[in-house]
Amino acid sequence: MPAVRYEHIKTCKQSGARLGRVHTPHGSFETPVFMPVGTQATVKGMSPDELKELEANIILSNTYHLFLRPGHELVREAGGLHRFMNWDRSILTDSGGFQVFSLSDLRDIKEEGVTFRSHIDGSKKFMSPEISIEVQNALGADIIMCFDECAPYPCDYDYAKRSMDMTTRWAKRCKEAHKRPDEQALFGIVQGSTYKDLRIESAKQITDLDFPGYAIGGLSVGEPGSIMNEMLEVTVPHLPEDKPRYLMGVGSPDYLIDGVIRGIDMFDCVLPTRIGRNGTIFTSKGRVIIRDAKYARDFSPMDENCDCYACKNFTRGYIRHLFKCGELLGLRLATWHNLRFLIKLMADVREAIKNDRLLDFRKEAFEKLGYKDS
Amino acid sequence: MPAVRYEHIKTCKQSGARLGRVHTPHGSFETPVFMPVGTQATVKGMSPDELKELEANIILSNTYHLFLRPGHELVREAGGLHRFMNWDRSILTDSGGFQVFSLSDLRDIKEEGVTFRSHIDGSKKFMSPEISIEVQNALGADIIMCFDECAPYPCDYDYAKRSMDMTTRWAKRCKEAHKRPDEQALFGIVQGSTYKDLRIESAKQITDLDFPGYAIGGLSVGEPGSIMNEMLEVTVPHLPEDKPRYLMGVGSPDYLIDGVIRGIDMFDCVLPTRIGRNGTIFTSKGRVIIRDAKYARDFSPMDENCDCYACKNFTRGYIRHLFKCGELLGLRLATWHNLRFLIKLMADVREAIKNDRLLDFRKEAFEKLGYKDS
Repeated sequence: MPAVRYEHIKTCKQSGARLGRVHTPHGSFETPVFMPVGTQATVKGMSPDELKELEANIILSNTYHLFLRPGHELVREAGGLHRFMNWDRSILTDSGGFQVFSLSDLRDIKEEGVTFRSHIDGSKKFMSPEISIEVQNALGADIIMCFDECAPYPCDYDYAKRSMDMTTRWAKRCKEAHKRPDEQALFGIVQGSTYKDLRIESAKQITDLDFPGYAIGGLSVGEPGSIMNEMLEVTVPHLPEDKPRYLMGVGSPDYLIDGVIRGIDMFDCVLPTRIGRNGTIFTSKGRVIIRDAKYARDFSPMDENCDCYACKNFTRGYIRHLFKCGELLGLRLATWHNLRFLIKLMADVREAIKNDRLLDFRKEAFEKLGYKDS
Repeated sequence: MPAVRYEHIKTCKQSGARLGRVHTPHGSFETPVFMPVGTQATVKGMSPDELKELEANIILSNTYHLFLRPGHELVREAGGLHRFMNWDRSILTDSGGFQVFSLSDLRDIKEEGVTFRSHIDGSKKFMSPEISIEVQNALGADIIMCFDECAPYPCDYDYAKRSMDMTTRWAKRCKEAHKRPDEQALFGIVQGSTYKDLRIESAKQITDLDFPGYAIGGLSVGEPGSIMNEMLEVTVPHLPEDKPRYLMGVGSPDYLIDGVIRGIDMFDCVLPTRIGRNGTIFTSKGRVIIRDAKYARDFSPMDENCDCYACKNFTRGYIRHLFKCGELLGLRLATWHNLRFLIKLMADVREAIKNDRLLDFRKEAFEKLGYKDS
């Protein structure tokens, strides 16, 4: 019995997008879904109860960070990540691959694995498919990810191909190293940079290994949105219908909607929390920079169409004051709202799929949010 | 009809401490009470709902800070401080006096008022009894304070006497400037440094002006606790029985208990929030420095006898991890717990008064908390 099961509910007749439900050892969540990121075993600024209040059912946490601090053995002793952070709903951990390549300097990539320097204290560390899985087994998330190489953008064809092939070999090693398949679902990751044939080849190689779910990695790393969408269009048809599909690192409203239309079920991104802490607010009429002087005497909510705690209780003028003073409550309220905004957006997307009108929904949403049609 | 009324419930037969209730336009609170400090219209890290959850019924906010940012006119436009910060229970604002003397450099104290430099942008500002009351009238707190000079410690007798006399003249001007006596209760402040005769003289001068409540200022500014207690012992008998008595700037558990025993009803201090943000935790067995390595694998709550959200849901090991990573949730949980600790302490103090055993309670508490008897 696999740890995670995808239940297909319906396909949108207008867009082909799919509505589903993913069942995990820590409850179910409807898809398409946006997963808030809790890098260091906490979604920055939020408590677990607040995440539940805004209807987050699955969050992501980062293996790289927890491996370095507090260490996976400590988390195992605490009873696993769920107990450590007091989150009893689903968790997905990434493999650490992306952070090893993006956060650390002096990384040395070999077939065996990657030597890198900790971004915290500069100490030398080693991460391999086997170590990544060992760490993720100790953390105990419901969904864990294969250790892959996330190639940079742009990337020449030869590098992209060699990297993709290695990612496949690493995926095989991850599968073999995985000790808790009944409790944790190990997802494979499709790579291949921005080359259609490589994406297709990678999808075939990875699905041949038969994972309970599949991610598409190496996108949203600087390439234009049109290229990302193209890559999704060539890749998704090679993924099985009965498994969840996860597009890694995507969180802007336009990309989310366009990903869903191309058959994606799951997304994660630090965008809502990161820009929230800087005082940039998603609203139903586009982004608002809350520090702007024009909001000083604006005693309306951040977003008049939002049902979140921040919007029901506080004004733009007050939240601007908090940001100007560097007060923690400002970061909290902006983060809370931005997460709720994306989670509500996905609920609206699911509703549009139910009603076979996701393309209409996209048109309306892009217009309101101020996105140009691509 | 005065804005605030003190209802005496009973006097502890063992200690002479008093149990009461203060009625304000925004509800009532039992005394003795500890008031969390919300310097810039927010108790650092906490939401109003969380403050209610930990049973805070009155908070303090700082006139000096709000005068500089966002400005009292903006708060007035927002509908007053209660609406601005979404707090519908009682608020007390201080006069700005203490901050003008402690936070600002280049202050020039004249009979008319004080010229000082803003600690934010260095600009020159002026504060007088009339301006302080104008600002506090705009903020609209339930209890407002006279603009006083808080003399430094140590302070020579002549300076202390001149300062005390000026504080009395300023108190008279504050009373005359006060425009909203039916909605806001203006408290007088007794000064007099560490000189018994000046304290008595100040108490007489200030009570002669007939305020609806009295504060004792200029203590807890560096003098030994024994001197503070002595000053309380000579001052309190000169304050009327039918008005609340507020000891400004006191928040450590031992000083709170000793203040109550000497007849004090109200206290405020940044201590619990400030040390909480630095990772110092009040517990029923004394203070804990949560960053200490020995707590890394301690999976028990911060304080096993505490009923707060943080203690019910998170472990020392997890909170230490949050502090080591600089995660906001760590500051929040430590702040939450420390505030709840003091508010619960005061509830226990009230219970001990009810049962005529506050001296016994003091002995037990000092022993558990590790305070030496003074």
